[in-house]
Amino acid sequence: MKTDLDPAIAARLKRTPDGLVAAIVREHDTGDVLMLGWMDDEALHRTLTTGRATYWSRSRQEYWVKGATSGHHQYVKSVALDCDGDALLVTVEQVGAACHTGEHTCFHTELPVTGGERR
Amino acid sequence: MKTDLDPAIAARLKRTPDGLVAAIVREHDTGDVLMLGWMDDEALHRTLTTGRATYWSRSRQEYWVKGATSGHHQYVKSVALDCDGDALLVTVEQVGAACHTGEHTCFHTELPVTGGERR
Repeated sequence: MKTDLDPAIAARLKRTPDGLVAAIVREHDTGDVLMLGWMDDEALHRTLTTGRATYWSRSRQEYWVKGATSGHHQYVKSVALDCDGDALLVTVEQVGAACHTGEHTCFHTELPVTGGERR
Repeated sequence: MKTDLDPAIAARLKRTPDGLVAAIVREHDTGDVLMLGWMDDEALHRTLTTGRATYWSRSRQEYWVKGATSGHHQYVKSVALDCDGDALLVTVEQVGAACHTGEHTCFHTELPVTGGERR
């Protein structure tokens, strides 16, 4: 996919075998972790230049702008890249629910931690 | 890789082409997003049953227990799976710096957001 992403940024990305980096989405006002999306170079370019969080859908194999159908828009406040280039921290103003289920965040299935030194 | 991960959990995971889910690591006390790691089924199993955050290193192609060499341990408080099974939110007590650079978090490169309706 041809993209206009700044080559200096593109050179720092460390992608999955299918060309994606993980985008952690955090709510600006609360600090809550809302969801994880996936971005290829072009999705990152669109996110940075439009101020609207844009992802690559692994299931549908297409770009999607968060909120385009649901109205649950994400206005981008800031984007930070991590030290090894495989993850982004996208801070947004979230309109409505982040999760397609209607929940505030996508992380609503607790897994049992059964062992260890829990201080 | 043979694993003893609960098959009911394994059945919910949606992995990258190389068999991994993204693990977002959040600090319990502050809510800060510290880093992103990768887990295959066995790394998740070890994390849940030992209470110590354990990842799969994509660069070294091996398991690593956070803090094993640095002393910067992560004691796991909770683990939540997201709605589509491709991401985990791991809440930890972090000892020392989360990033190998010595920074508190791994997200220390701000990217320019140049466009859009920033409210």
